[in-house]
Amino acid sequence: MTQTMIPLAGALTPEGHRLTQRVYYEDTDFSGVVYHARYLHFLERGRTDFLRCLGVEQADMTVEGEKAAFVVRHMDIDFLASARMDDILTILTRTETAAGARMVLRQTILRENVRLMEASVTIAIINAAGRPRRLPTDLQQKMLGM
Amino acid sequence: MTQTMIPLAGALTPEGHRLTQRVYYEDTDFSGVVYHARYLHFLERGRTDFLRCLGVEQADMTVEGEKAAFVVRHMDIDFLASARMDDILTILTRTETAAGARMVLRQTILRENVRLMEASVTIAIINAAGRPRRLPTDLQQKMLGM
Amino acid sequence: MTQTMIPLAGALTPEGHRLTQRVYYEDTDFSGVVYHARYLHFLERGRTDFLRCLGVEQADMTVEGEKAAFVVRHMDIDFLASARMDDILTILTRTETAAGARMVLRQTILRENVRLMEASVTIAIINAAGRPRRLPTDLQQKMLGM
Amino acid sequence: MTQTMIPLAGALTPEGHRLTQRVYYEDTDFSGVVYHARYLHFLERGRTDFLRCLGVEQADMTVEGEKAAFVVRHMDIDFLASARMDDILTILTRTETAAGARMVLRQTILRENVRLMEASVTIAIINAAGRPRRLPTDLQQKMLGM
Repeated sequence: MTQTMIPLAGALTPEGHRLTQRVYYEDTDFSGVVYHARYLHFLERGRTDFLRCLGVEQADMTVEGEKAAFVVRHMDIDFLASARMDDILTILTRTETAAGARMVLRQTILRENVRLMEASVTIAIINAAGRPRRLPTDLQQKMLGM
Repeated sequence: MTQTMIPLAGALTPEGHRLTQRVYYEDTDFSGVVYHARYLHFLERGRTDFLRCLGVEQADMTVEGEKAAFVVRHMDIDFLASARMDDILTILTRTETAAGARMVLRQTILRENVRLMEASVTIAIINAAGRPRRLPTDLQQKMLGM
Repeated sequence: MTQTMIPLAGALTPEGHRLTQRVYYEDTDFSGVVYHARYLHFLERGRTDFLRCLGVEQADMTVEGEKAAFVVRHMDIDFLASARMDDILTILTRTETAAGARMVLRQTILRENVRLMEASVTIAIINAAGRPRRLPTDLQQKMLGM
Repeated sequence: MTQTMIPLAGALTPEGHRLTQRVYYEDTDFSGVVYHARYLHFLERGRTDFLRCLGVEQADMTVEGEKAAFVVRHMDIDFLASARMDDILTILTRTETAAGARMVLRQTILRENVRLMEASVTIAIINAAGRPRRLPTDLQQKMLGM
C-alpha cells in the first residue's frame, strides 16, 4: 500500500487553508452517510488548524494580555452532497472579512473535486467575561492575507 | 428532590413542538460551555420528536410505498447565548413552509425564557436512490397545522 | 398518541438509579445500530443523574471546601446486544463499592427486558490539581444506600 | 512553521499499527480535558486504519462472499492520564489473539512517551444477520504478524 502523507495541521495555499481528514465510523449515522452535524466538526478542525498555521493556539490565546477565545455567532450552511465511511475530505478555509471584533470565514468541504458543503461562518473574539474584543492587527493582517 | 416529569417525545403546543432536554458532560467543551455543533443534535432531536408526535417514525418512513428519508439541505443559525453543563433546554420546532419536496422548519433553543439559538432548517424528502420525493399530503397538512 | 411521561433526572428505585433515554440519529452509525462509544454517553448521563438525585451537581462539586470532580479510572464493558434508532433505553446505575477516594459503579443498559450492555466503572474524586480526594462520608452513605 | 507530515492511514511498525491524531475542541469537555468516551473514537480510528493497512476496507468487507462486519464485544480500559486541546496523540494497535470468530487487540494511546490509556478490545466478525463468522485465514495471518 502506498502511504498518502499529509501535513498534520494542514497547509496555507493560494486557495486558503487546506486540511485533509478521513471519515470514520463515528461520523456516520444509520442512513449510511455522514451525520449532518459532524460536518461542523470538520469545519471547526479546519478553522483551528487555519489559526494554528497563522501562529494562534486557541487554548492559550490572549488579546492585549487578556485570555480570549473565538466563538461562532452565525453559520449559513449548504449541504450539497453526502460523504461516506472511509472518504477522504478536504476542508478549505478562507477569510472573507476580518474587522473589529468579527470575522467571516468561507469554508468548503470537498471529496476530490466534488463540493459536499459550503459554509459561511461568523466568528467573534470575546474575553473571559464574554465581552467582545478587537481582533489583533497582526492576526487580522495575516488572516486577510489568506 | 421534586421530580420534573417530562413527556419523552415532547409535546405539540400552540407555539410548536416543545421538547425538554438536559445538557450533559458530552455536550460541553473545554471553553466551559456547550460545543457549538452539539446544538444541532438538540435541534435534530426536536425535529425527530416533532415528526414522531405527528405519527412519523423516520427509521421506517415510506412515501408512496418506497423507503424515504428526510435530509437537511440548508441551515441558517444564530448562536445568541451559551448553554452550560446541567442546563435544562427547551427545543421549539414549528413549520414555516411545507410544499413539494421541501419544507422549512423554524427552531429555537431556550433556557427558561432566554433564547440561546434561532435556526431555519430546510429539509428535503428523498428516496433510497437520493431522488427528491413529494411530501405526502396528509403529513403536509399536519405539519402546516403546527 | 399517548405520551410517555418520564422523570427528567431519572429516579432512585430499589434496583438502583433508573434513567430513560431515547436513541436519536446522532447515536447510530452506518452499520445501522448504535455506535459502540455512544453507550458510554448513556452511561455517563446515568451516573450524572444518579448523583443529581443524591443531591450532587457535578459542575459545582466541592470536597472540604475545595473544587472537586469525578473522573473515570477504569471501565470493563460487555456489549451484549445492539440498540437501534428510536429505541427507548433504560440505564440502571448501582453502587458496588465506595470507599476512600474510589468507588465502583455497576451499570446496565436495557431495552425493555433485554440487556444490551453491562459495565463496571471505577470512579475517583480529584481536586483541581488532580490529587485524589476522599469521598465525603454523607455522599458515601447515600451511595451505599443505593 | 515546520509542517509535521504524517501518513493519513497510519503505519505498520514493529510495535504495531501507529496512528497520529490531533485533539480538537470537539474532543474536550468542560472539565478542561478530553471527554472519556472520546478516547474510544481514537481507538476505533486506530483499529480501522490498522485494518486498512492490512488491506481491509470495513465498509465493503465480505467473508466467504457474504457481507460481514466487525463488532466490539468487550472492552477493558485503563484511563491513566488526560489529554488536552491541541495535543498530538499516538494510537498503537497490536493483535493479542486472533482465532475463530474472535480477536483481541491491545491498544495504547500516548502523548509523546506518556501513556494516557491502555485498552484490551475483543472484536467479533458477524454477517448481515448478526451470526458469527470465522476470521478469514489470510487476514488472521496478517493480523498475527503484527
